[in-house]
Amino acid sequence: MDSQILYEKYEKVLLNYLENRNEKGLYKAQQFGREMIEQNISPEEVVSLHVKVLTQALPYLDQDVLDTFDFLLEVMMDYGLAYREHQSLRDKQR
Amino acid sequence: MDSQILYEKYEKVLLNYLENRNEKGLYKAQQFGREMIEQNISPEEVVSLHVKVLTQALPYLDQDVLDTFDFLLEVMMDYGLAYREHQSLRDKQR
Repeated sequence: MDSQILYEKYEKVLLNYLENRNEKGLYKAQQFGREMIEQNISPEEVVSLHVKVLTQALPYLDQDVLDTFDFLLEVMMDYGLAYREHQSLRDKQR
Repeated sequence: MDSQILYEKYEKVLLNYLENRNEKGLYKAQQFGREMIEQNISPEEVVSLHVKVLTQALPYLDQDVLDTFDFLLEVMMDYGLAYREHQSLRDKQR
């Protein structure tokens, strides 16, 4: 999936959820996660995308919150490596 | 790692980062991510832990921000499944 299309889709699903805040919106979020896995998007890329959309959607976010996302991204770095290793192991087993 | 110990460690590393906001703090975040992987903690558990610590550390967080975390958690659900599948494939290969 092209990164611009991915951004727009994430934004659409997130804003839709923020508008309605219901189970259906959360279900769509879960489905979208599945779709991103199928597209080999790693978990730290998801967090990075989340932050990008958030800073656009909620421009009043304060610096503390933004900084905690930098922190979360670093924490997730090795999860990205593990995820790519997973794709590679899975492909070998096919 | 006991969940209370994990919470306290995450809180300590995050608050330390927020206090200094430097490269060293980000490096510690990355190291802690590695440690959590060794402890078989899945990526959606990391996000869940992040939110718990954040709501304690930054009690002025607004509802919109909190709701976007519910969204992110749902997106990450299947990453948790993929991660557990990864652990299982890796263990089989050992």
